[in-house]
Amino acid sequence: MASMFRRMVVVGIGLIGGSLALAARKRSLVEEIIGYGRGKKNLRLAIRRGIVDRYCSDVAEIPRGIDLLILATPVQATVSVAASFVPSLEAGCLVSDVGSVKAQIVREMERLLPSHIPFVGAHPIAGSEQWGAQAARPDLFLGQRCILTPGGNTDPVALKRMVCFWHGLGAKVEVMNPRLHDRILAVVSHLPHVLAYALVNTLSQTEVDSVDLKDYCGGGFKDFTRIASSRPEIWRDICLVNRRQISKSLSDYIKRLERMRQWIRDREGDLLEREFARANEIRRQIS
Amino acid sequence: MASMFRRMVVVGIGLIGGSLALAARKRSLVEEIIGYGRGKKNLRLAIRRGIVDRYCSDVAEIPRGIDLLILATPVQATVSVAASFVPSLEAGCLVSDVGSVKAQIVREMERLLPSHIPFVGAHPIAGSEQWGAQAARPDLFLGQRCILTPGGNTDPVALKRMVCFWHGLGAKVEVMNPRLHDRILAVVSHLPHVLAYALVNTLSQTEVDSVDLKDYCGGGFKDFTRIASSRPEIWRDICLVNRRQISKSLSDYIKRLERMRQWIRDREGDLLEREFARANEIRRQIS
Repeated sequence: MASMFRRMVVVGIGLIGGSLALAARKRSLVEEIIGYGRGKKNLRLAIRRGIVDRYCSDVAEIPRGIDLLILATPVQATVSVAASFVPSLEAGCLVSDVGSVKAQIVREMERLLPSHIPFVGAHPIAGSEQWGAQAARPDLFLGQRCILTPGGNTDPVALKRMVCFWHGLGAKVEVMNPRLHDRILAVVSHLPHVLAYALVNTLSQTEVDSVDLKDYCGGGFKDFTRIASSRPEIWRDICLVNRRQISKSLSDYIKRLERMRQWIRDREGDLLEREFARANEIRRQIS
Repeated sequence: MASMFRRMVVVGIGLIGGSLALAARKRSLVEEIIGYGRGKKNLRLAIRRGIVDRYCSDVAEIPRGIDLLILATPVQATVSVAASFVPSLEAGCLVSDVGSVKAQIVREMERLLPSHIPFVGAHPIAGSEQWGAQAARPDLFLGQRCILTPGGNTDPVALKRMVCFWHGLGAKVEVMNPRLHDRILAVVSHLPHVLAYALVNTLSQTEVDSVDLKDYCGGGFKDFTRIASSRPEIWRDICLVNRRQISKSLSDYIKRLERMRQWIRDREGDLLEREFARANEIRRQIS
């Protein structure tokens, strides 16, 4: 069976970009995979691990015949990296990404790319707190959700091809408005990351005699803050690009905490218990 | 070898009380175990599971010869339950607890108990979000920390016996001032529980078109909020009894979130990245 794409460039061979390359090769979706990035050590590791066939670190070295360009950088870099590739891209090359924020990227990519180079925004909801080519694995997307976020001008044929591509990678594909995507992800993913980082820093800045509070962290604290091991640059970018939605969720959350603090101070046991019981019930519905 | 205690009453055969009973029996620390509680169904299950030898639900039924009374109720009930037992207790009976808050309980127990009935506060740092006799297991405390919190009037012989008892149950025993205990636990345990409950409720009260946000919760959200499955009454009581320390930690945390929200709104990428990177580094030190 013929591959879907002949020559794919993946920009950023990290956990997501590297796993995408491994899965695309394993499933024979792509004939040749070229890695693109700045970190030579990481790119050489990607060669050794069979993630990419070759790599380059300069757009001037990019060969002709690219028919799929995947942008897997931190989200603030997505559009500027794409801009640097535009002169090298031939008509019909499909451009996509894997970023955790969509509305701004879809809008800016539609403005940037000429009409013969279609863009389809994608966000595979998979990951771990590990990073780099060493963390990549071909089964990362198996059974996981991948949200595709067409904008007003997205080419329907390109969208269909990306639906097939992500199905081929093993993901459950869902198509969604980019703004809706950003509102959902702000609450279920971006907010928890901010909260986890903040909790670890609150712990580290709390002075309790000369006790090292880290020694007293149990399973609950560790689970809660596992995502605070995620890569800082990735989450800085997500916070900046999805700042409106994250600010809003954070405001809602802070208001709720203020109310709970009041209840604790005023010994409002019934109100606290009702709040906890409600959360308890809802949490049990999240398998 | 003789057991340490002849007849132990455990009040509250839940995850902690039940596991303590199972471990004490397995390690032959106690000859006879009597369960005490209100939920007959749970107590009958405790008999079937071999957690207790018999049970009662009325202090009038408590036999003579009790030499260890373990209070394993939600922390607001500890002192009042102890008060109801006082008339039945003989001189030398050791009283202890397993509560997650210590200063207030130690103070009130010292006020309540006559000098011939010693009290030693204890907090085994172990648990899970499951509850009831069905969740009890004999290895719950193995290798886990148990903090003993003597007050100014604690009998040193009784303290030594409880150190031996918890060693015997397999725990790593640490002796600590009760106030210090409460300050540490407020940050590493109580605060995260409040935050997890609040996040689940923020999710459930966020309206995003007609989307059910629960469907979009990934591994990060689930890990973060696992502790929101913990029993509401337990955490209501902990919040009320340790309210000063929890309020203070919550204030610190809210201030930090406010600052981060400002940074997100003002696109302060460097400040955000520094904040995330600091948390990242500290989190990696928590194995």
